[in-house]
Amino acid sequence: MSDRYTSFANTPAGKAVVKRLGLPEPVRLRRYRPGDPDIEGNVLVGGAGRLAEPVRKLLQANGVNTDAAEGPYAGLVFDATGITDSTGLRALYDFFHPVARSLRPCGRVIVLGTAPEDCASPREATAQRALEGFVRSVGKEFGRGTTAQLGYVAPGAEDGVESTLRFLLSAKSAYVSGQVVRVGRAPASQPKDATLPLEGKVALVTGAARGIGEAIAHVLARDGAHVICLDVPAAGEPLSKVANDVHGSALQLDLTAADAPQRLVDHVKERHGRLDILVHNAGITRDKTLARMSEDRWNSVLDINLSSQERVNDAVLAADLLPAGGRIVTVSSMAGIAGNRGQTNYAASKAGVIGLVQSYAPALADKGITINAVAPGFIETRMTAAMPLMIREAGRRMNSMSQGGLPVDVAETIAWFASPGSAGLTGNVVRVCGQSLLGA
Amino acid sequence: MSDRYTSFANTPAGKAVVKRLGLPEPVRLRRYRPGDPDIEGNVLVGGAGRLAEPVRKLLQANGVNTDAAEGPYAGLVFDATGITDSTGLRALYDFFHPVARSLRPCGRVIVLGTAPEDCASPREATAQRALEGFVRSVGKEFGRGTTAQLGYVAPGAEDGVESTLRFLLSAKSAYVSGQVVRVGRAPASQPKDATLPLEGKVALVTGAARGIGEAIAHVLARDGAHVICLDVPAAGEPLSKVANDVHGSALQLDLTAADAPQRLVDHVKERHGRLDILVHNAGITRDKTLARMSEDRWNSVLDINLSSQERVNDAVLAADLLPAGGRIVTVSSMAGIAGNRGQTNYAASKAGVIGLVQSYAPALADKGITINAVAPGFIETRMTAAMPLMIREAGRRMNSMSQGGLPVDVAETIAWFASPGSAGLTGNVVRVCGQSLLGA
Repeated sequence: MSDRYTSFANTPAGKAVVKRLGLPEPVRLRRYRPGDPDIEGNVLVGGAGRLAEPVRKLLQANGVNTDAAEGPYAGLVFDATGITDSTGLRALYDFFHPVARSLRPCGRVIVLGTAPEDCASPREATAQRALEGFVRSVGKEFGRGTTAQLGYVAPGAEDGVESTLRFLLSAKSAYVSGQVVRVGRAPASQPKDATLPLEGKVALVTGAARGIGEAIAHVLARDGAHVICLDVPAAGEPLSKVANDVHGSALQLDLTAADAPQRLVDHVKERHGRLDILVHNAGITRDKTLARMSEDRWNSVLDINLSSQERVNDAVLAADLLPAGGRIVTVSSMAGIAGNRGQTNYAASKAGVIGLVQSYAPALADKGITINAVAPGFIETRMTAAMPLMIREAGRRMNSMSQGGLPVDVAETIAWFASPGSAGLTGNVVRVCGQSLLGA
Repeated sequence: MSDRYTSFANTPAGKAVVKRLGLPEPVRLRRYRPGDPDIEGNVLVGGAGRLAEPVRKLLQANGVNTDAAEGPYAGLVFDATGITDSTGLRALYDFFHPVARSLRPCGRVIVLGTAPEDCASPREATAQRALEGFVRSVGKEFGRGTTAQLGYVAPGAEDGVESTLRFLLSAKSAYVSGQVVRVGRAPASQPKDATLPLEGKVALVTGAARGIGEAIAHVLARDGAHVICLDVPAAGEPLSKVANDVHGSALQLDLTAADAPQRLVDHVKERHGRLDILVHNAGITRDKTLARMSEDRWNSVLDINLSSQERVNDAVLAADLLPAGGRIVTVSSMAGIAGNRGQTNYAASKAGVIGLVQSYAPALADKGITINAVAPGFIETRMTAAMPLMIREAGRRMNSMSQGGLPVDVAETIAWFASPGSAGLTGNVVRVCGQSLLGA
């Protein structure tokens, strides 16, 4: 989907008009192209804790210069795990103040800390919690496509940060900003071929016929997975096309049917014997104010967006289809976090998805399976293209990137969760919203 | 502080203009006046769980009709604790759909549930988490000054909900919406005189010379407390006036001084022997982008807004000044949740305050002391009156109330946390922001 305003605002004439009128100035976001290295350019690493050295080594092993005395830098990574009380927060200022203007456009800011719940004292927990306000402010302030994230890395998980650092420093996270990610202890296996991290994996994507689901199928296939593309029979034609394009397979199935979970299990078991990656992307909207909403609108949204995910998860787990190392990734929504007018049904279903991720994570961790959610903000799709002009423009502009995201941005985030290196990531909810200002 | 637009938009001529131009239509919010009952009008109670009956009895004991067959209703309270999986969410629709238009202006919607972490199964936790998306959508959708909240009540805490229900149903919570409040098990003592819940209590309010601090002093005094009003010596004159107005006492103290915590402790101990309520309201802003920020701006904001609170807490606790039943309430900020451009220092300090509340709560609970935070959004003060026009208007209008809040709205929320009936509330962060859309 195109965004004509962003294209216009990036022409020489457009830039002048935009500046004179005080309109939003979206930069053209760098996005990943196959063949690109994940991390391009120098990354300055600072801070004194348990992560600075492992991070420097990891980046250097990837050919990244971590000690360049001058910018422009592609990224700034600060290890804040050594900060044990609020007076120590001064170290943030000391590191970032001199280099705040040395980031190139679409630069990356990453602060690494210890989650408050893992801290040894209330003072340390207080200081570590303060990092979130800092990072979210940097995301809003630095502009020019800069993203800023906070990674809470559990003590002992120092070796498990590579997939997260790679993603957050790369162009794959172009539309992810202002997020808090928790990396726990778990034996992460590094893929043999970093350009094909999902090689040999079997993935299933629901709602794969178009939009975000189609992009997910493409990205997982690009990363080496065999993708089973699932959608309703009515979408059979575009579904076949996507399955062909990604050299995967198609499965026509109405997830609301009573026998759908069992048929899904039977299909996957028969053809592949197992499922490594399950992506719950299928979802619908049936917007109306609560006073005007029919029973059917309520029930169908809750059933497809939430209950059907539960039924499929239960069937897949009962059949032992997901082996250790398995991944479940589900699509929530900003509306599930912040609520939305006319979407009591949709927001309840998408908030429920967050509950699902958080409540299933502990039991799944015992089986070596992770479960995480992405929560898209304004993503350019047929759905958003059909919105009324003013609502569309507000959603598109009112975020730190001053533009909407693309389906591929959601897909890249899911591929990060799906990768073998992300074993330490579970129970996370990451917004793909350009740090939207409109709620949440 | 006046808001001329809201006044204008509520005149007959203004209403017509506002409607024709599609401008925000703020309603004049009902606010509490001494002598008013907390709950005025009929409240419909629905749902089938462990809370519906206790809530009905509690409201009826306060003279409220809970079974009126027709609206207009002052409030709708739904007990969702009986919902144990996502299909049961249908009960929300069944209750709210028929009565969604029967709320009077400035009505109240309250959904009561079980916190996901207290649920017996992942299915139940998922459904209970879904409530949040529903409630936040209702807050954005119902309009006309309606507030909507989610109260997670711990099993066994059914008898401890009165102070929370009273506050959330009353005009005291006029600018609180879209919030999630957790009520835990703790022996709440009901005040002898409901109109003077803080009678006999000693409270200390920092930053009390003006603005929000002045409003806090007034509301705590109205509720019966003796208020020690603290501010810097330079604010001595307005401080004395506030202390006189509330029949309290004044304490001039610079909280950044090394001996300030001890002098505070000595003063309170000598005059009153103990401190029941400690309100950390003192705070400053020193806005600049990080690249332009001086060391002093960073350090002074972190020290006053965060580190000085820690020093005072430690001194007060070490001196055993806060008895069982004690209350600490601190003022965070929406910027501490969502971040803000030009406020890396302020947002870090205010996010730290959230960390402080959450990390100190468990140890304080063992002593019978609660700690909670309020996070104000756009509140009409001298500080916001000085903002540039467009930023001020965006902050003021972009929330579910289409207007800024008043200092008294923050003060009422603090008084709710401070009341003897709120023993089950600890570790909460409640935004007083009219459900602001601008982040968080």
